[in-house]
Amino acid sequence: MSEAKLFILSGPSGVGKGTIVSEVLKEDPGIHLSVSATTRSPRKGEVPGVSYYFMEDAQFRSEIRAGGFLEYADVHGHFYGTPKAPVMEKLAEGKDVILEIDVQGAMKVRETYPDGVFIFILPPSLHELRRRIEERGTESREDIELRLGKAVSEMNYLDRYEYYVVNEDLQGAVADVRAIMRAERCRVRKAEDILKKIEEES
Amino acid sequence: MSEAKLFILSGPSGVGKGTIVSEVLKEDPGIHLSVSATTRSPRKGEVPGVSYYFMEDAQFRSEIRAGGFLEYADVHGHFYGTPKAPVMEKLAEGKDVILEIDVQGAMKVRETYPDGVFIFILPPSLHELRRRIEERGTESREDIELRLGKAVSEMNYLDRYEYYVVNEDLQGAVADVRAIMRAERCRVRKAEDILKKIEEES
Repeated sequence: MSEAKLFILSGPSGVGKGTIVSEVLKEDPGIHLSVSATTRSPRKGEVPGVSYYFMEDAQFRSEIRAGGFLEYADVHGHFYGTPKAPVMEKLAEGKDVILEIDVQGAMKVRETYPDGVFIFILPPSLHELRRRIEERGTESREDIELRLGKAVSEMNYLDRYEYYVVNEDLQGAVADVRAIMRAERCRVRKAEDILKKIEEES
Repeated sequence: MSEAKLFILSGPSGVGKGTIVSEVLKEDPGIHLSVSATTRSPRKGEVPGVSYYFMEDAQFRSEIRAGGFLEYADVHGHFYGTPKAPVMEKLAEGKDVILEIDVQGAMKVRETYPDGVFIFILPPSLHELRRRIEERGTESREDIELRLGKAVSEMNYLDRYEYYVVNEDLQGAVADVRAIMRAERCRVRKAEDILKKIEEES
């Protein structure tokens, strides 16, 4: 009945965005997950079109010029971006789309696609975020401090988002995201279209 | 973590508002249902403070002057209204409050309490609404036509609501209302308060 929507899930790294997204998709396979494009080489085990769309540098640049990305960035000499066409196709089919992305990327999507629903995933506390990053055990002291500093500065963008979800326990966070997606389908945007549908079916 | 909210459920008579509200309360007894006040006499089986707050005419008028109602109306010589104090108390305790009310009443609440979340319950079709009203079997042909005409004119207020829920099947409508209530708790209203909480707990 109502339009499908693009849901942008973002937040600091280490906050558990990816796990929440996997669970949401597991519970509702009708949702489409946006796949990023990149110019870096595929790594072992990565599946083209699933992990990433792998592109040549020239092709990526030509897509940029054609306005083919909702957002893109140059990270250490490689491009990463969110191709616009697959997102628009799924929305046109009436499928909700999830885009998992960092805060900088989300802020760019706000400019190219302001109709998106922006959800910020927060840690229950900074202490807990530190614990989660340390638990991964792959990073040096300095890297951990850098990451935490970045997380705090990213959290200042919270007021640019419509919703926030505190990832205290995974099931609660997943239920929050699913409730937001369901509630957004109930929002009155074009009242006349809703009423026309009800009158037509009479 | 976030503020509790007043949810106004309204829509044409016959649409099934009351049944939806009962189910929502059954699933989540933590929600408070607003009880109306009236100056009419209690009917058999009605429990004061549960069915209605029963008031004397003079008391009701004095409450009106004191700004004690979120809305009130004079219906065939009896007053009906929504007392403000119990709603504000429950909200202050962090409890969500549901107010089930007709469209005219909801429009008055919008003026006195614009922070409410307004949900319009719609029938799947006008044909189905007619069927539901006829099924009750208590009304004459003319009364049914009057009611349907009123329903159609009330539906034109849909664009003054934030959300709509189509009561096609009861369980789906209840799930929609519960999702809206859960999602509203995730809305970013005062970003600084949310962040302060996360920093404090560190």
